[in-house]
Amino acid sequence: MHRYQVLIEYDGTKFIGWQIQRKGKSIQGSVQYCLSKLLKQKIILHGSGRTDSGVHAIEQSAHFDSSYKIGNIKKIIKSLNFFLNYKNISIINIRKKNINFHARYSAKERIYKYLILNRLSPPSIDKYRFWHIRKKLNIQLMKEGAKILLGKHDFSTFRAANCNAKSPIRTLNKIIIKKSKDKVIFQFRSKSFLKNQVRSMVGCLKSLGEGKWNLLEFKKAIASKSRKKCAVPAVAQGLYLEKVIY
Amino acid sequence: MHRYQVLIEYDGTKFIGWQIQRKGKSIQGSVQYCLSKLLKQKIILHGSGRTDSGVHAIEQSAHFDSSYKIGNIKKIIKSLNFFLNYKNISIINIRKKNINFHARYSAKERIYKYLILNRLSPPSIDKYRFWHIRKKLNIQLMKEGAKILLGKHDFSTFRAANCNAKSPIRTLNKIIIKKSKDKVIFQFRSKSFLKNQVRSMVGCLKSLGEGKWNLLEFKKAIASKSRKKCAVPAVAQGLYLEKVIY
Repeated sequence: MHRYQVLIEYDGTKFIGWQIQRKGKSIQGSVQYCLSKLLKQKIILHGSGRTDSGVHAIEQSAHFDSSYKIGNIKKIIKSLNFFLNYKNISIINIRKKNINFHARYSAKERIYKYLILNRLSPPSIDKYRFWHIRKKLNIQLMKEGAKILLGKHDFSTFRAANCNAKSPIRTLNKIIIKKSKDKVIFQFRSKSFLKNQVRSMVGCLKSLGEGKWNLLEFKKAIASKSRKKCAVPAVAQGLYLEKVIY
Repeated sequence: MHRYQVLIEYDGTKFIGWQIQRKGKSIQGSVQYCLSKLLKQKIILHGSGRTDSGVHAIEQSAHFDSSYKIGNIKKIIKSLNFFLNYKNISIINIRKKNINFHARYSAKERIYKYLILNRLSPPSIDKYRFWHIRKKLNIQLMKEGAKILLGKHDFSTFRAANCNAKSPIRTLNKIIIKKSKDKVIFQFRSKSFLKNQVRSMVGCLKSLGEGKWNLLEFKKAIASKSRKKCAVPAVAQGLYLEKVIY
């Protein structure tokens, strides 16, 4: 067996998400299908994790096994891109890996980016790339909220009802919030995230930024460990899986 | 008469361009139609200049006259965006102006941005936002080419066959070329540009960057003042009208 890592960029707008499901077009399914055809064998693609419908990836990471060593990787990438580009999927790279490498379990850190367009007018050029928030956000207050989220916590407040992780404990290594003209850019780094965690955290930070919540209410929401205390999660279209670190 | 300036952002992908033509969907036509309906009078919208089919605008500027003073400008912007957003047009602002203001003739400088994605894999998230160039571009050489273009020149080489400007003489005030990861970002500033000038210049700079041309050949192309000596112009989808300065 020969193991390969695949780095994949995609526009999640028209997909049901990364993961193959009974119905609908998934990124995993699309790439797996093309790989199987090109390599003339049944390929199973293992992703670093799922992304929801509408969520994008700048660099999703996955692995697969081939029964033979692939001779010309560049040619395979080119062929894959020829077939996948009209679907808004782009194969960034394929690398030979040791058989112990696992896209999901070997990951040391996952980096997510979240984009808010903070202005009165809706986006046109980047229509499905942002969460559009009209009210001017208080960046300083959101940064203070982010400080509270940093480190090891029980993130039950930020966990989807159907999340099947064994523990709600996660460690947030880093949060960056910065403003660039009318855009607000968030970055979150952690070994792993609970289902819906990033969008739930952004939803709560936005409640802070809008002045709907103060820092005390924000702290209370975390301390409650109750999904009911979470603000409305941020929309999928503003979320990007930026990179998986091994 | 009451004169108003309109600032417009648009994704040019599905339009025949800014200008109303006998057939097809134009940005000018779409905004003019909605303005006429909302203000209950025939509105004529004068743009700062045309943009071709596929070309985007971060901030196109236009003006129109209303027979009465608009009471609630914010409400008009909101209504316009309600009707225009599904077409990928966004009204950024409307401002009351002196009757002497003219979107085209009062303009002191126009700023265009051009984006190249310089990597092997095609774009997926920003599919119609870049010119995709696989061969690694020599940024330093392109910067040296840009220096030659700066200032007052006869730009006949970079002028579309059907350009109807009286003179091919233009003055380029500034060119910025910078690299950010796998993106190459160009910015061009001039009081005005000839038809197709920016895309033609980017096409020639790209020939330099790819190593197809050397600086001597680049200089010769300019000196020839012949359209035939121009490289293939850059594609429309990488071009953005960034701002019009008054």
